[in-house]
Amino acid sequence: MATSNSFSYDDLYSRNSIAIPRAENRHAKYDFAVAYPDPETLPLDGLAESLKTALEREGKGLALYPVSAGLPSLREWVAERLTRERNMQVSPEDIVLTSGSGEAISMLIAALTDPGDVLLTEEYVYLGTLRAMRRFGADVRSVKCDNDGIIPEELETTLSGLAAEGRKVKFLYTIPVFQNPLGWTMSLERRIKTLEITQKYGVPVLEDDCYVDLRFEGEDVTSFHSLDDTGRVLYVGSFSKIVAPGVRLGYMVAPPEVIQRAMSFKGGGGVNQFAALAVQEYAAGHMDRHIEEQNQALRVKRDAMLSALGENFGDAAQWSKPEGGLYVWLEMPEGTDLAGLQEPVFNQGVGYYNGTMFSPEGRGANCARLCFGHPTAETVSEGIAELARILEGHGVLRA
Amino acid sequence: MATSNSFSYDDLYSRNSIAIPRAENRHAKYDFAVAYPDPETLPLDGLAESLKTALEREGKGLALYPVSAGLPSLREWVAERLTRERNMQVSPEDIVLTSGSGEAISMLIAALTDPGDVLLTEEYVYLGTLRAMRRFGADVRSVKCDNDGIIPEELETTLSGLAAEGRKVKFLYTIPVFQNPLGWTMSLERRIKTLEITQKYGVPVLEDDCYVDLRFEGEDVTSFHSLDDTGRVLYVGSFSKIVAPGVRLGYMVAPPEVIQRAMSFKGGGGVNQFAALAVQEYAAGHMDRHIEEQNQALRVKRDAMLSALGENFGDAAQWSKPEGGLYVWLEMPEGTDLAGLQEPVFNQGVGYYNGTMFSPEGRGANCARLCFGHPTAETVSEGIAELARILEGHGVLRA
Repeated sequence: MATSNSFSYDDLYSRNSIAIPRAENRHAKYDFAVAYPDPETLPLDGLAESLKTALEREGKGLALYPVSAGLPSLREWVAERLTRERNMQVSPEDIVLTSGSGEAISMLIAALTDPGDVLLTEEYVYLGTLRAMRRFGADVRSVKCDNDGIIPEELETTLSGLAAEGRKVKFLYTIPVFQNPLGWTMSLERRIKTLEITQKYGVPVLEDDCYVDLRFEGEDVTSFHSLDDTGRVLYVGSFSKIVAPGVRLGYMVAPPEVIQRAMSFKGGGGVNQFAALAVQEYAAGHMDRHIEEQNQALRVKRDAMLSALGENFGDAAQWSKPEGGLYVWLEMPEGTDLAGLQEPVFNQGVGYYNGTMFSPEGRGANCARLCFGHPTAETVSEGIAELARILEGHGVLRA
Repeated sequence: MATSNSFSYDDLYSRNSIAIPRAENRHAKYDFAVAYPDPETLPLDGLAESLKTALEREGKGLALYPVSAGLPSLREWVAERLTRERNMQVSPEDIVLTSGSGEAISMLIAALTDPGDVLLTEEYVYLGTLRAMRRFGADVRSVKCDNDGIIPEELETTLSGLAAEGRKVKFLYTIPVFQNPLGWTMSLERRIKTLEITQKYGVPVLEDDCYVDLRFEGEDVTSFHSLDDTGRVLYVGSFSKIVAPGVRLGYMVAPPEVIQRAMSFKGGGGVNQFAALAVQEYAAGHMDRHIEEQNQALRVKRDAMLSALGENFGDAAQWSKPEGGLYVWLEMPEGTDLAGLQEPVFNQGVGYYNGTMFSPEGRGANCARLCFGHPTAETVSEGIAELARILEGHGVLRA
């Protein structure tokens, strides 16, 4: 029998629990690390007004516990928008609102992944997804990409190799628009090829479309979801980029049976009704115009970043020229240790995330993701010049 | 190699996933089933105004992803209030905001429970906790209670029996104030005894204090947490009952090492910043007064329910006389099948939850929880009369 002196929580923790140190959310003076939207374009007045209106109309519903799939009127809005903008055949019943798209992605990973299962991603992949995949013990494998997206031959080789080994591949995760962190948009041809190959191997696709509304030039490519009529494309989207991360609203679109499984991993009841009411009311009246204004501001910042990279890095590096989204992918010559320099450069005032953070295999030490969403255009220009000066000081860029 | 014709998600689901059917949130005409607060006392105008003020002051923070522990100013408010009202020595660093207290409870269960572990509860227990315990494969055992709370001799017998069997008990879960569903408040003497016994067996206590602010008569009893200085009381609270369930805000208080483990089960990033800003601003200015008004309204409804039970059930049943909270526990003679009648009575217009739903061992078919928070006092009176008429029709209450 244990006595009170021998008590320790270490004897009580579950096998699946790991200690997560308290996150600090540090920001450098020039913060190109985290993918924030522009605080100046946040629709704060609109949200406050919308909440007031929505509470007057249906606030008494706050006394009830939200339905587990989330506010019906916001699911309706999402369904209509996806039908109109992404050619998707969806109804509100196909949608579950989640606490950011991160929760939707985690729920789908949890529903489909046992430890050791293979999950496929693009060559570099959104950090949050990579962490969640690892948390569920997945064997994450990346597929080589070029500027049009996943290279079909590479996908075929990967899948046939895994099939030959008898490995179970649970799904392919893709961010086909303004890929995080690479910045490209996958072409229609590549999407069709990717679907053909994955379907041949019985592998569903999880399409993360969270940046699709942040296009400030060029034309949209139709969604993976719209190209499939067999229920084998799962889809997630987010309000973090078009309203604000702090509203913690995202969603999944999936066949009913997959939703039922994913719901066994939904925490904390239905999504925040308070935020959902404000966003639904705001979206119904203002979203198209808000997105247009926000994208005009983002374009100016992207232009500032591309100019500053040209002026300060010249031909000493390569970088992506995204038609939208929040970041540029910087690639310096092989051997440049942007991974090792990340912390010292942060301490000197410039934040970025190096490529190894996004790579399932830990590659890309010579690469970095540079976000232009949060700082002003002026700060972007100053910060890139400062980054160049700091890298010169470290001897990895010639003055 | 699988071909597209053979595709089925059934081959892909993880072992831990179970199918959760879409919930309907059905409400009877007289809904005594679900524990809602009073929609008439929701502080809707106050929340809308508070959000506007808070967004003007610090809304730009919505562009950032919330810190994982949740809005610092709301954690400060919680820490101050718990120190003042519950004699607890806590700082904002000891607190994690969660999506309702349900998420806090689930995170703690997940952090401490492997399949087969024993978790102890009171004789009847909050449905959400019971479901979460079962979801993580716990062997849930209840301890007999009387109107002062857990009976110490029963607790000692249970723990010594489990120790003799070599079973690991991970924690004791208690709702010591306005117990859900029983309605009593655990006396100070019982709390001290409960702590002595659990500490002797090395078993921590999870104190769920979510109803503590809903007292409309009698005196508060000091918290379990304040009676322990060894870190062996974990504590959860909620804004669902004092603001609204739809704001989805609750919290846990735990030692740093337990918080770190629990955080590995936190879904969807930090808690909703938008709701947290509104609630913090509202709480700082208005909470005490709001709680007072709300409790005046609840007292009237409780009185209406107790009178109606007296008039319509006379000495054919027994029921609790709670000094606060949202429900009355009705006990009819042994053999009365309120479990079997729940669905037919619902279809006849009166909703309640029968005792077996709250019992780890499935006992209590002759009992029911009757919530008085949501309907008006008039509706409470009508509904109880209607319930009596319906039960008479089913032959389990004599006219």
